[in-house]
Amino acid sequence: MSVRLIESLATTEPLAAVFSDVSVLQAMLDFEVALARAEAELRIIPQSAVRTIARCSRAEEYNTAALARETLRAGTPGIPLVKALRKRVQQEDARAADFVHWGATSQDVADTALVLLLKKGAQILDADLARIEKALRPFVAKHSKAVMLGRTLLQPAPPVTMGLKAAGWLASIRRGRVRLQRAFSEALVLQFGGASGTLAALGNRGPRVAELMAKRLRVNFSGAPWHTHRDRLAEVACSCGILTGSLGKMARDISLMMQHEVGEASEPGEGGRGGSSTMPQKRNPIASAIALAAANRVPGLTAAFLSQMVQEHERGVGGWQAEWPTMSELIQSTGVAIASMAEVGEGLTVSPMRMKENLKSTQGTIFAEKAALLLTAKLGREAAHEALERATDPKKMRGRTLAQVLADIPEAQIDKKLLASVEDPEEYLGAAQVFTARLLSSTRGRQRGRK
Amino acid sequence: MSVRLIESLATTEPLAAVFSDVSVLQAMLDFEVALARAEAELRIIPQSAVRTIARCSRAEEYNTAALARETLRAGTPGIPLVKALRKRVQQEDARAADFVHWGATSQDVADTALVLLLKKGAQILDADLARIEKALRPFVAKHSKAVMLGRTLLQPAPPVTMGLKAAGWLASIRRGRVRLQRAFSEALVLQFGGASGTLAALGNRGPRVAELMAKRLRVNFSGAPWHTHRDRLAEVACSCGILTGSLGKMARDISLMMQHEVGEASEPGEGGRGGSSTMPQKRNPIASAIALAAANRVPGLTAAFLSQMVQEHERGVGGWQAEWPTMSELIQSTGVAIASMAEVGEGLTVSPMRMKENLKSTQGTIFAEKAALLLTAKLGREAAHEALERATDPKKMRGRTLAQVLADIPEAQIDKKLLASVEDPEEYLGAAQVFTARLLSSTRGRQRGRK
Amino acid sequence: MSVRLIESLATTEPLAAVFSDVSVLQAMLDFEVALARAEAELRIIPQSAVRTIARCSRAEEYNTAALARETLRAGTPGIPLVKALRKRVQQEDARAADFVHWGATSQDVADTALVLLLKKGAQILDADLARIEKALRPFVAKHSKAVMLGRTLLQPAPPVTMGLKAAGWLASIRRGRVRLQRAFSEALVLQFGGASGTLAALGNRGPRVAELMAKRLRVNFSGAPWHTHRDRLAEVACSCGILTGSLGKMARDISLMMQHEVGEASEPGEGGRGGSSTMPQKRNPIASAIALAAANRVPGLTAAFLSQMVQEHERGVGGWQAEWPTMSELIQSTGVAIASMAEVGEGLTVSPMRMKENLKSTQGTIFAEKAALLLTAKLGREAAHEALERATDPKKMRGRTLAQVLADIPEAQIDKKLLASVEDPEEYLGAAQVFTARLLSSTRGRQRGRK
Amino acid sequence: MSVRLIESLATTEPLAAVFSDVSVLQAMLDFEVALARAEAELRIIPQSAVRTIARCSRAEEYNTAALARETLRAGTPGIPLVKALRKRVQQEDARAADFVHWGATSQDVADTALVLLLKKGAQILDADLARIEKALRPFVAKHSKAVMLGRTLLQPAPPVTMGLKAAGWLASIRRGRVRLQRAFSEALVLQFGGASGTLAALGNRGPRVAELMAKRLRVNFSGAPWHTHRDRLAEVACSCGILTGSLGKMARDISLMMQHEVGEASEPGEGGRGGSSTMPQKRNPIASAIALAAANRVPGLTAAFLSQMVQEHERGVGGWQAEWPTMSELIQSTGVAIASMAEVGEGLTVSPMRMKENLKSTQGTIFAEKAALLLTAKLGREAAHEALERATDPKKMRGRTLAQVLADIPEAQIDKKLLASVEDPEEYLGAAQVFTARLLSSTRGRQRGRK
Repeated sequence: MSVRLIESLATTEPLAAVFSDVSVLQAMLDFEVALARAEAELRIIPQSAVRTIARCSRAEEYNTAALARETLRAGTPGIPLVKALRKRVQQEDARAADFVHWGATSQDVADTALVLLLKKGAQILDADLARIEKALRPFVAKHSKAVMLGRTLLQPAPPVTMGLKAAGWLASIRRGRVRLQRAFSEALVLQFGGASGTLAALGNRGPRVAELMAKRLRVNFSGAPWHTHRDRLAEVACSCGILTGSLGKMARDISLMMQHEVGEASEPGEGGRGGSSTMPQKRNPIASAIALAAANRVPGLTAAFLSQMVQEHERGVGGWQAEWPTMSELIQSTGVAIASMAEVGEGLTVSPMRMKENLKSTQGTIFAEKAALLLTAKLGREAAHEALERATDPKKMRGRTLAQVLADIPEAQIDKKLLASVEDPEEYLGAAQVFTARLLSSTRGRQRGRK
Repeated sequence: MSVRLIESLATTEPLAAVFSDVSVLQAMLDFEVALARAEAELRIIPQSAVRTIARCSRAEEYNTAALARETLRAGTPGIPLVKALRKRVQQEDARAADFVHWGATSQDVADTALVLLLKKGAQILDADLARIEKALRPFVAKHSKAVMLGRTLLQPAPPVTMGLKAAGWLASIRRGRVRLQRAFSEALVLQFGGASGTLAALGNRGPRVAELMAKRLRVNFSGAPWHTHRDRLAEVACSCGILTGSLGKMARDISLMMQHEVGEASEPGEGGRGGSSTMPQKRNPIASAIALAAANRVPGLTAAFLSQMVQEHERGVGGWQAEWPTMSELIQSTGVAIASMAEVGEGLTVSPMRMKENLKSTQGTIFAEKAALLLTAKLGREAAHEALERATDPKKMRGRTLAQVLADIPEAQIDKKLLASVEDPEEYLGAAQVFTARLLSSTRGRQRGRK
Repeated sequence: MSVRLIESLATTEPLAAVFSDVSVLQAMLDFEVALARAEAELRIIPQSAVRTIARCSRAEEYNTAALARETLRAGTPGIPLVKALRKRVQQEDARAADFVHWGATSQDVADTALVLLLKKGAQILDADLARIEKALRPFVAKHSKAVMLGRTLLQPAPPVTMGLKAAGWLASIRRGRVRLQRAFSEALVLQFGGASGTLAALGNRGPRVAELMAKRLRVNFSGAPWHTHRDRLAEVACSCGILTGSLGKMARDISLMMQHEVGEASEPGEGGRGGSSTMPQKRNPIASAIALAAANRVPGLTAAFLSQMVQEHERGVGGWQAEWPTMSELIQSTGVAIASMAEVGEGLTVSPMRMKENLKSTQGTIFAEKAALLLTAKLGREAAHEALERATDPKKMRGRTLAQVLADIPEAQIDKKLLASVEDPEEYLGAAQVFTARLLSSTRGRQRGRK
Repeated sequence: MSVRLIESLATTEPLAAVFSDVSVLQAMLDFEVALARAEAELRIIPQSAVRTIARCSRAEEYNTAALARETLRAGTPGIPLVKALRKRVQQEDARAADFVHWGATSQDVADTALVLLLKKGAQILDADLARIEKALRPFVAKHSKAVMLGRTLLQPAPPVTMGLKAAGWLASIRRGRVRLQRAFSEALVLQFGGASGTLAALGNRGPRVAELMAKRLRVNFSGAPWHTHRDRLAEVACSCGILTGSLGKMARDISLMMQHEVGEASEPGEGGRGGSSTMPQKRNPIASAIALAAANRVPGLTAAFLSQMVQEHERGVGGWQAEWPTMSELIQSTGVAIASMAEVGEGLTVSPMRMKENLKSTQGTIFAEKAALLLTAKLGREAAHEALERATDPKKMRGRTLAQVLADIPEAQIDKKLLASVEDPEEYLGAAQVFTARLLSSTRGRQRGRK
């Protein structure tokens, strides 16, 4: 079990497992095995050494607590890892120990291990993003005609549809998913440069070793090491930041629609979600709260990652040393937001009845723009606006609706039939259907950035 | 003149001009003119109104101070802008005034104006990025064989070349340029949604109006409004963040190389750069300092932009209202970093002589890795490392170099010729040339993200 | 006029004036005059020079645009300022020009100028904070018995009072004011260290000059220069960050209470506030939106300031160079949030009627905790909770209130009179009055941190 | 063992233990026991229940993994904690179970638990800060006359002393310590408000229960709950941010002084610190790198905390839910920076010889300011500066020092003895000793903010 209590709202079990000690250590050991195999294939080290190294590279057999302690002393996880691996190899084959980590440097292990962890994380994130898309597409279609209040600055505005609102969520989350896929596909790159980034210890065979390693580890090789150029990782961090913002927007909307006074939506409540320790009647927007918590946390984490980019010469003093925890928190926070909104998307229920009631409770004032257009045609813009401002003064409306008030403006002489339609929300949706359809179609087709 | 004293290290004149009052106001007026033209073309408003509106849309003729003041009262620049424009139009043609801003909302004006400003900014940024690339490519070629100390954690490491180091800068800045171009090309999108994002006031003709407007304003139309989905703008912010990190890394390296004790590089000193008010002899790394200042500022600004993404329903309360200053500061800070490093790139001088002296001053200890490989072959890894640690103890080296010390390890029996080459930096560059060539070639060819 | 359109929602006129070119330049000139006076008093420079220097130190007479341009070249505003001042002095008295800036360095001017600007800013901020306190104290008293829904996670919870809610705002803003006063009083410190921070050019008279200067400029002298130790300024930045968070919380609450569906509060609408360009009937929470925009912007700016603290040796490369714009934006953003909430506090109206309606609309379910306590006494906790969960199932309540439902649980046998009181919010306020009184009293008395 | 590999450079063992599952859970259980005791003392619940509750409140006996899992479902650790505790109590005494958590809400448990953890963390941080002060005070005294290059923008400047530089570190870290103590002493406050913050379930006895609880838990009671007012916690976050900046400055200076080309300082190298996996000769500034990594991470974390302050009504949606991990990372990152610099402070060695060599290698040019003062007296400022600029042109100095060059300016006619002293760094230290003494004395005496 990898989730800790202190961070239990900021991760998921599968993502906590990705960044667990065993997983992190295994990623480092996988680097060492791939290195040995590539070097043996090129006859740089003996084939026999590889077998021992591979046999000694099972993370479960190591004392990760000791490794963590020594990492703080060494300033890098690479040094204690190599020491521990070498010791273990030596017990089986003293000569093989000489060939452990041959030609590599500790940052090579640490960076490539991070890349391998990101690769695992990317799959988890993408699977949950696919769930959101899969859930929201039919939701949009189902509610494409469900009229509801538009709300600007949290005040009533002309109507929109539930489908249009959800299509907006879907399209922006989809764009975020494409960005994240692209960022991962560019960042999942082997790091292998040796002491100074020239692979000098391997003579002229460094690039060939790198290619073989990348192939084995199923990551890309970008042609050169990137030890002090962290822009590709920074793009992953930023893509997490942008996506979490989009998820936070969806979560904010839903938490507002769930207000008792609004009552238009409800998160699914299965599995103990949303109860209260003191108030038996409550249904809290828990999943939205968790996504919003991530949206609060992630921008600062993104800034932290960007700050770490200024790394000195061939290895920074304090830059990359800050990346592991920052990136791990970014991926986990983003992941819990995605998983939460996937759950919401799959079980979100809405109340078209409450939507209509809320529309009605504005007494037609949200159609003032429409009325203004009608009156302008009769009276000119200025007179029309004045008439309307007088008419929609809450004190004067006294329970009447806008249409009723308009009927009492004699100079307007608005056609009765027309008047009847003024407050029909379905008659004032403009391009809502067109926009919904276009947003939906923007989320289909081949995904850019995927291979 | 647009640069203010308080921000004079955080912008450039051309970028300050982009965000000057006249430029901002003109962008808003351009939106209103394009709107009127598109609506007239579709016979939604009379053709005669357009001419008056266009004639009244010269930013220089407005009182921007008053507009700024009223913007704070109104909570949006759109309201006072429309009011001022309408008033001016009315003085010429009372009826035309009725058709000003027809069907649009204030956020439409504000957002599209921001997009138009970003378009101008994008060109300035890209032109200076091209300068960096143009300057660094021959610099890399020229210094591809200039050996110098590698430095990890600011300590001596095996040699690299000046060319390889600069190729790293170039490749990461180029990736950042491509990212920024892509982000701009996705974000330069018309915003036009009307009161609630449905263009209801235009019946079913909204999308057609939008298409015509986008064409006139030479921006894209993404098929639907994006008023509360700010992910495309956030990607611009993030791309600025990543790029500034890469520029900061280059600036840090150069400022470190310019240290008196290191003396390997010098920023160009023309035009009053780098002097001191008290110390006549000084040559300060001013341009690098300014780029590093940007690298300090921009991550926080990026975080601010990401925090603003959680925007309520059809128009947020406090989200987009924070974007104008944040984005303007981001573009200007990024721009001054780019311009500074362009100037540095174009005039950077290096001292191969000091590079060699610094290499030499390590007494060969940076070749300990190489020596270790040699000794390991003779003595086994453990004995080799022990011998080396003893040998390179500063107290014992007493002025001798590593090769001299090695010659005195009798059990090593290293070939004399081999020994002589141990401390030759040119013999220990590994794949430096290959990596340099690959990094260079990664910066050529068609740029992704460009049209 | 100092407010620019692009930042018109992120500042106020008085604060923009503080950071205007003339104000910034005057602060720098004030430093130079104070320096000359102190040095003349100690007979380090001739008295006659002081008069010329003082006469030449009127900011209005300088070309600030040219100074801004040269600042970017020089990397510091100090160099062009001193050059321009010297030139002007020289025209009047060639010898006096030799004594301009005697013994000081450019960072001394820049830092002390910032301190002088902060001093002006501090007064503006504090005056508006006093307005908030003055407005909220009677508001708390007036509404201390106005019962309203408590809301947790935006869901109905047991009742609170408007007075308690506002007392919470008041107390936290007051704490923020005290923090800010303290931070300013610690940061308003003369900077004067000369080239390296030793005042070497003044021999042993540096500290005495510093004391006299501090006295003239009415700032503190902390005993030593602080050129690369920016913690006191960072505390100002952080205090802005914390205070803006508290203001944002108040703004969020009010914007939520202003929702049409909630209808419990309304911002004042004078002076063109809150209207809409398309919807004549709207009253938008503009002031709250602006405060929330600040709350979105300021954390990132605070992070930027903290990032700039790592400054090299006796003068940093990229650290302090980033401070001017960051601090100016911080003060202005914080100030517009304070001013906005002062305006809100002074004119906020609430609707006790809607508060009661909203309470009632929960059908008593918010008293489930209270009912649970009653039932537990009869049935034990588990049976009580089960009975309640069944009872408050929305499908089963069918329009009945909690008390009516409870009356139908025969085994509970709750006393009729008791039952009647279950849904009386005034009977379930616990320590609301006590807490309100204590919060109020925490905001009275001598302010810590003030002299 | 609590440190995980992924965060092993971002925490220390004692701090990781504070935020370990058992510690977190015990803090929550301590709250429940203190609550029960207080309520029993006031005869709100039976005395017998307390004993059972206390007996069931040993964290080691719980399944924290399950609690973490259920916390994500519940959206708060309070709900599963109370459920688990109640279940365990019920097994011993069914009636006692009814009185678990009586009158409290889940945020009460979570917030007070965080406060109890911060209290533990505060002690660890303060102890290591005391180590830094204890180490740096004698270091300052010892090196108060060790002259060294001043360095501004990383370029040579007039001399300073090692003592003055270290006194600057010490004084700013001391100010940071005082700030942190003050912030902790204000934030270590009981949270107890019940469902809506009125303690309604306890009738009028809530405040009395709170006072007794605070006494038992040895934290303060501020008179009222602070559930949605997080400014006191934010001040802790900010104080961590400021302090880490000061530590980062010290670390940056030391890492620069440790450069091979500078060679003026060396971190202690005991316990495996500073070695390299590939370069046997290296001594890396590991502790400084770790402090700088914290200085990179912490500003973003501080921003995240500030962003979380905008919390809705009586309990936020996404605000406090983000605090636990953010605060835990802040404390741990700050703590590892403190511990690292304590270790550095205790073992830092410096090389006065290299300091002198570096001074000398500037050929006296750093005394150009002094020479300018001398020449100005003879020639007037302008002629003096011109003469100096010509004289210190590197091409013309050709190995000569400034004094030698000056001797060759006939019109200057500088006294020989005076000339000899121009390049004596000890003669150009200005107020260095005075400033050192004042900085030192600012770190003595009673600490503000302490009880």
